[in-house]
Amino acid sequence: MTNEEILRVTVLNSWKLAINRMVKTLSELSDEQLQQQVAPGRNRVFYLLGHLTATHDRMFPLLGLGDRLHPELDEPYIANPDRVVADPLSATELRQTWSQVNNRLTAAFERFTLEDWLHKHTAVSDEEFVKDPTRNRLAVVINRTSHASYHAGQAALTK
Amino acid sequence: MTNEEILRVTVLNSWKLAINRMVKTLSELSDEQLQQQVAPGRNRVFYLLGHLTATHDRMFPLLGLGDRLHPELDEPYIANPDRVVADPLSATELRQTWSQVNNRLTAAFERFTLEDWLHKHTAVSDEEFVKDPTRNRLAVVINRTSHASYHAGQAALTK
Repeated sequence: MTNEEILRVTVLNSWKLAINRMVKTLSELSDEQLQQQVAPGRNRVFYLLGHLTATHDRMFPLLGLGDRLHPELDEPYIANPDRVVADPLSATELRQTWSQVNNRLTAAFERFTLEDWLHKHTAVSDEEFVKDPTRNRLAVVINRTSHASYHAGQAALTK
Repeated sequence: MTNEEILRVTVLNSWKLAINRMVKTLSELSDEQLQQQVAPGRNRVFYLLGHLTATHDRMFPLLGLGDRLHPELDEPYIANPDRVVADPLSATELRQTWSQVNNRLTAAFERFTLEDWLHKHTAVSDEEFVKDPTRNRLAVVINRTSHASYHAGQAALTK
C-alpha cells in the first residue's frame, strides 16, 4: 500500500467505526426505546437519530457529492429543538433513511483519492480556501465522525 | 502548504476541536457538578474525566512517545466501573492532570511528520503491521478523538 492508500483506508475505517457504534446501539433499542429521553428532560434518541441523519445528509452538497436526499429533516431535527415539530417519519422509516444516507456517503468516500479528500468543501470560498486549505472534505468528515460519536454516547445511555 | 502539511494540520485541528469541546464543558461544571451522574444510575462526570485522562495517558507508550505520566488512573477508571475504587485525586488535581496529559500529547502531535503519523503503534507486531498498515498512529488518534467526543456528549448532559 502506498502512503496515500494507507491514509485513505485509515480515515475511512474511522468513519465506519463511529457509524457502526451508533448502528449497534440502535439495533439494541426497540422503536419504543427510541422515544426515550437520553436523560431526564433531554433529547429523545429519535431526535438524535433524526439530527445525525439530517447532518450527514447535508454532507452531499457540502462535499460536492450531489443533492440532498432528505432536506425535510432539517426543520424538525436541526432548525428546532426536540418535540417542537412532529416527527415526519416513522421509526422504521427513520432507521432506513439513516442507513441509506450513510451507505451512500460511505460508497462515495470509498472512491475518494487523497486529492479528493483535500479538495475544498463547498461552504468555503476559493479565496478563503487559499488562505486556509485545512477547510477541506477530510476536516468535514473527521469532524462529523466526532459529532456522531458525541450523540452516540448519549444514545447509549438509554440501553 | 504541501499536501503533507495540510493533512497534518487537518488531523491536529480535529483532535484539538474534540479536546476543546470537553474542556469547555468541564469549565462550565463546578467540582460538585463533576460528582453528578450523567443520567440516573450512570457514570459520574468525574469518572468519565478520569477514564478519558487514563485512556489518553496510555497513548504515550502506545504511540512510542515515552512512559506514561499517570498509570495509577487505570485501576479506578479503566479496570473498574464507577464508584468501585475511591478517586485517587481531588477534582482540582484531576482537572490539572487532564490538561497536562493532553497538552503533552498535542505538543508531540505538532511535531509528527506524515511518516510519523503512518508509523505503526506499539500494540501491533511488525508482522501484523505488514499485513495491515492501517494500524498506525493516525488511526489511534482519530479513534481517541471519537472516543473523547462520545463521553463529552454524555458529560454535557449534566450542564
